[in-house]
Amino acid sequence: MTRLALFGAGRIGQVHARNLMTMPDMKLVAIADPVASPAREDLLTRSQARLDDAESIFSDPDIDAYLIASPTDTHAPLLRRAAGTGKPVFCEKPISLDFRQVVDVAEAFSRTDTRIMLGFQRRYDPDFMQVREEIRSGRSGRVQHIVMHTRDPSPPPVSYVKSSGGLFRDQAIHDFDMTRYLLGEEITSVFATGNCLIAPEIGEAGDIDTAMMTLRSESGSLVQMINARHAAFGYDQRLEAVCAERVFYVANHPAHHLVSADARGFTSSGPISDFIARFAQAYRAEMEAFRDMIVQGRPPLATLRDGVEAQRLAEAAALSLKTGRPVDVASVR
Amino acid sequence: MTRLALFGAGRIGQVHARNLMTMPDMKLVAIADPVASPAREDLLTRSQARLDDAESIFSDPDIDAYLIASPTDTHAPLLRRAAGTGKPVFCEKPISLDFRQVVDVAEAFSRTDTRIMLGFQRRYDPDFMQVREEIRSGRSGRVQHIVMHTRDPSPPPVSYVKSSGGLFRDQAIHDFDMTRYLLGEEITSVFATGNCLIAPEIGEAGDIDTAMMTLRSESGSLVQMINARHAAFGYDQRLEAVCAERVFYVANHPAHHLVSADARGFTSSGPISDFIARFAQAYRAEMEAFRDMIVQGRPPLATLRDGVEAQRLAEAAALSLKTGRPVDVASVR
Amino acid sequence: MTRLALFGAGRIGQVHARNLMTMPDMKLVAIADPVASPAREDLLTRSQARLDDAESIFSDPDIDAYLIASPTDTHAPLLRRAAGTGKPVFCEKPISLDFRQVVDVAEAFSRTDTRIMLGFQRRYDPDFMQVREEIRSGRSGRVQHIVMHTRDPSPPPVSYVKSSGGLFRDQAIHDFDMTRYLLGEEITSVFATGNCLIAPEIGEAGDIDTAMMTLRSESGSLVQMINARHAAFGYDQRLEAVCAERVFYVANHPAHHLVSADARGFTSSGPISDFIARFAQAYRAEMEAFRDMIVQGRPPLATLRDGVEAQRLAEAAALSLKTGRPVDVASVR
Amino acid sequence: MTRLALFGAGRIGQVHARNLMTMPDMKLVAIADPVASPAREDLLTRSQARLDDAESIFSDPDIDAYLIASPTDTHAPLLRRAAGTGKPVFCEKPISLDFRQVVDVAEAFSRTDTRIMLGFQRRYDPDFMQVREEIRSGRSGRVQHIVMHTRDPSPPPVSYVKSSGGLFRDQAIHDFDMTRYLLGEEITSVFATGNCLIAPEIGEAGDIDTAMMTLRSESGSLVQMINARHAAFGYDQRLEAVCAERVFYVANHPAHHLVSADARGFTSSGPISDFIARFAQAYRAEMEAFRDMIVQGRPPLATLRDGVEAQRLAEAAALSLKTGRPVDVASVR
Repeated sequence: MTRLALFGAGRIGQVHARNLMTMPDMKLVAIADPVASPAREDLLTRSQARLDDAESIFSDPDIDAYLIASPTDTHAPLLRRAAGTGKPVFCEKPISLDFRQVVDVAEAFSRTDTRIMLGFQRRYDPDFMQVREEIRSGRSGRVQHIVMHTRDPSPPPVSYVKSSGGLFRDQAIHDFDMTRYLLGEEITSVFATGNCLIAPEIGEAGDIDTAMMTLRSESGSLVQMINARHAAFGYDQRLEAVCAERVFYVANHPAHHLVSADARGFTSSGPISDFIARFAQAYRAEMEAFRDMIVQGRPPLATLRDGVEAQRLAEAAALSLKTGRPVDVASVR
Repeated sequence: MTRLALFGAGRIGQVHARNLMTMPDMKLVAIADPVASPAREDLLTRSQARLDDAESIFSDPDIDAYLIASPTDTHAPLLRRAAGTGKPVFCEKPISLDFRQVVDVAEAFSRTDTRIMLGFQRRYDPDFMQVREEIRSGRSGRVQHIVMHTRDPSPPPVSYVKSSGGLFRDQAIHDFDMTRYLLGEEITSVFATGNCLIAPEIGEAGDIDTAMMTLRSESGSLVQMINARHAAFGYDQRLEAVCAERVFYVANHPAHHLVSADARGFTSSGPISDFIARFAQAYRAEMEAFRDMIVQGRPPLATLRDGVEAQRLAEAAALSLKTGRPVDVASVR
Repeated sequence: MTRLALFGAGRIGQVHARNLMTMPDMKLVAIADPVASPAREDLLTRSQARLDDAESIFSDPDIDAYLIASPTDTHAPLLRRAAGTGKPVFCEKPISLDFRQVVDVAEAFSRTDTRIMLGFQRRYDPDFMQVREEIRSGRSGRVQHIVMHTRDPSPPPVSYVKSSGGLFRDQAIHDFDMTRYLLGEEITSVFATGNCLIAPEIGEAGDIDTAMMTLRSESGSLVQMINARHAAFGYDQRLEAVCAERVFYVANHPAHHLVSADARGFTSSGPISDFIARFAQAYRAEMEAFRDMIVQGRPPLATLRDGVEAQRLAEAAALSLKTGRPVDVASVR
Repeated sequence: MTRLALFGAGRIGQVHARNLMTMPDMKLVAIADPVASPAREDLLTRSQARLDDAESIFSDPDIDAYLIASPTDTHAPLLRRAAGTGKPVFCEKPISLDFRQVVDVAEAFSRTDTRIMLGFQRRYDPDFMQVREEIRSGRSGRVQHIVMHTRDPSPPPVSYVKSSGGLFRDQAIHDFDMTRYLLGEEITSVFATGNCLIAPEIGEAGDIDTAMMTLRSESGSLVQMINARHAAFGYDQRLEAVCAERVFYVANHPAHHLVSADARGFTSSGPISDFIARFAQAYRAEMEAFRDMIVQGRPPLATLRDGVEAQRLAEAAALSLKTGRPVDVASVR
């Protein structure tokens, strides 16, 4: 039986906790979350875990692993503390909004054997996994280019935007990670441009709501990304991987499967507009991978280094947006 | 150069004439159509053919082939006359609304070497041809069953219904023919039921507007058909052929390829609602086959016997509707 | 807290039990299943329910409701016993393979106030529910006809076929129920034909593996059904409801959303081939409805009478297959 | 009757000639094409036009209009000559591979009243026209961004690449034109990058085979384009126009409408891989617009200025590729 502590009982913390609770050999024993909420109370009741503070958790020898799903600004300190324990840790992205901190945390872990897994759940989605496997198999020829579209169903509150690190660090980070995951190599340059076309208040808060990016990999493959804070039809999450002999599409998942037809044509369902529902299977597989890392020492699909490199691309994009020019990724440190 | 005479300059006659006019070795020289109309005049101008009467056409030694696209009640007399000339003839379906006449015409031809081709254009549609080829190849295993849906975009005028021979002889005849074309064997029994659910005036005229049929072939394959005088979204013309190891669908052809998406979902085009546009390619291929029959003696995909057997199935369906029981096709004579 | 007893810890019993176990106010306390199996043991462990026999369960005053998911031949005796307790009961279809028993059970319940709900989960599927709501709203005009296709991914073992009551009572019963659910009226006649085209051993066991049916409702709407024990591409579960002004399609649910494209065209996912996965949402909603019936007295979407009438249609179909003629449903008693 | 002269009897010249030949009031009287070919002879026979040289054509007072479909390097001299005649002229894109020449030709026309129409047939495609109308109506809100993908079925011969002006001037020019057509405003900046990932011989010839571009319009709308010389599944020609309240997709046109399904999933048709078939309707409408310009003086959808501006964008893209930075379009002269 593995005894786990959860930091953060918010939305994503709940998702992870529920997935862990279906596994007979995983037990949630402590939850650290300083803010009382019905969600926190419900999770405490269901899990029968104790409410505790971070320091007691890290000092408790009976806790075997940590799951960090608290607000972003707590990640770096919690990670630094966890690094010293030698116990397995899962951490949601991003590591920190300050890239210097990201690098520091990575260095802290590099001096230990502490195993860590990053929260890039999309790596565990069966559709994206299959594309990666096809690419790695080589049977469809080289990847010539990749196209990714991520559009949220609606813009977040401007308060969230302000603390989120902006479109690149908050939303596009999953797409940056996906490029490395699929290509199996590093990105060398990033060109980013954007505008505020959806929600003027986002512009007033100093961010963009629509970004267009072009990336180039070590081997010369090209990547085009669009990230936006809104799509009229809901959550848009698509990918095309153009290989020499075959093209792969990851399509949106429809919310339902009823079609109606009349004189105006055929009307079918828009996409599932809740990313937690869209990636339900991926979130389950991600926790199974966390268990496999804890119990069997099996390396996860998303490492700390993946977290660092995805953030490096986000930094490169932010710099490109500011300078109006492509940025050499290696120069971001 | 083959010199042709056309009987009937109505809608379908125009389609055939235009397709023939694109072939350098086919020349339309005479048109018989007693009713003046702008369409007839336009066709006379474009083709530079003469307006003539049936008798002169059949007596003209310089005419090489006949194309019959005149009203149904003229088919049998024109066919009988054509049978005696020995010259190739193309005739639109149905041969006659009176099955006795159908059999008589077939007997008349059987006593000659006159080549004749029936107007089942759907046999020349690339999608349906491909299904047939797949079935004949045997590579998908035996045909277990076939499902066909034919729904018109809107009910015809009741005057047309009255002279059309009814839903079975007029519309469903193409589907009856398709079952034999695809299965490559005869149908042994027909169960038909129906109702008047769309246009009450069709019921008052003694016909149904919605039919459901179940057929069985010699080898035991099953066929289900729906024929209706209306579909809310336009012309519906679909087929499923369920083979042991693979299923084939002939889908509707969309009118356009623009999709729009908003909060209500995705809206895409309904089908092309004009059967002449839907089967444009088939009509062209059909006239090419007529030319190949004339010039090279190549047997067409739709013979007189196919016309007789499709009508036999229509008669069986009409009888089944009347008696409320499956009808043994062999008993229809 | 509602305390439930489950009869039958097989596949469908497990599905219901797991759904109930996610509801804080429902508690599974006893399981009756005479056959030891890993699944039974696992369920006993997870639920912490006791293993018990039927008689003790019915005598236990602390049990509040019964869930019957045991083999079909036990349904009627368990139901008769449950009827006398006055406690709410859920029963999987069919009530009995012997229609006389079905009627008897219904009469037994009619003499009590015992609430009962039948296991027609498809009534709770969001797509089918939406079609029903559209039809009931009348905004798309009258239902002219309905088309249903149900094909299993692969034929069941012949041993199952022998005890299943045959294709009509076992598989098609859900479709029979759906016609009444959608049309909101009774079916008056059934014509059924069929053949053994998929699995010869099913024919040897006296059943068919492919059925085609045509039904007519009180108001004259028509229904066409195809039921088969196999489709080459997996589980096929589709419906078209043709209304005067709009047509509704319930499409298959794809197993994944990855599309690949190459010189041979586009390849996309076949349907989810596990009916429990296909109807996961419906099964959850069904247990919620069971809870609502127990706790709030809210009538379920599937009543005992629905169970009786669906089986009456199955009996009519079996008789039609035997006689080769349409059967008047009212004559089946 | 309008008497036309055609320059160039190659593939696209044939398309235009055939479309004109179906119009009773348009007559092709002269063809200038110095290279004998079966296609030229066939067109001379069908049209009964005379073979002539350019100078005689321009001197012939009986010729009413010119259609220029000859090799690109002849466009500018023919256009300059035509400008002086005052007679309507249609010219295929591009005007010249030398942008200085493009500007010169435009100046030559600006000093006359000679009407001229450019060969951007995609403006006449019903799907693209509909998107434009939707955008112009404003009913879907502002255009936030546009995505365009153009991929050829297979790379052209390297000899063609060398004389084509490269990917931007040859293929992407239609997409550059489409951005201005849809947005109804000018593009202010272009970032282009690319690589040679498909056909090494194209790289050796100094061109790229895959381009990625990001454009920005006067009002701040963003455009992303991918242009490639190959797609594994055939001709790829898609567009997404993301408006505030609705998204529009122009989908590929499938080559056929037969779907097959087996254990591996559903296989459907790839796109029509011949751009002349894909745009058959657009080419017809384009010639009708040419006739309307000649006969009624109706302005075409594609003017000379549209030709100039599309080429200015191609020049900007070429410069961006070279410099690795976004290019201010106004600086291209």
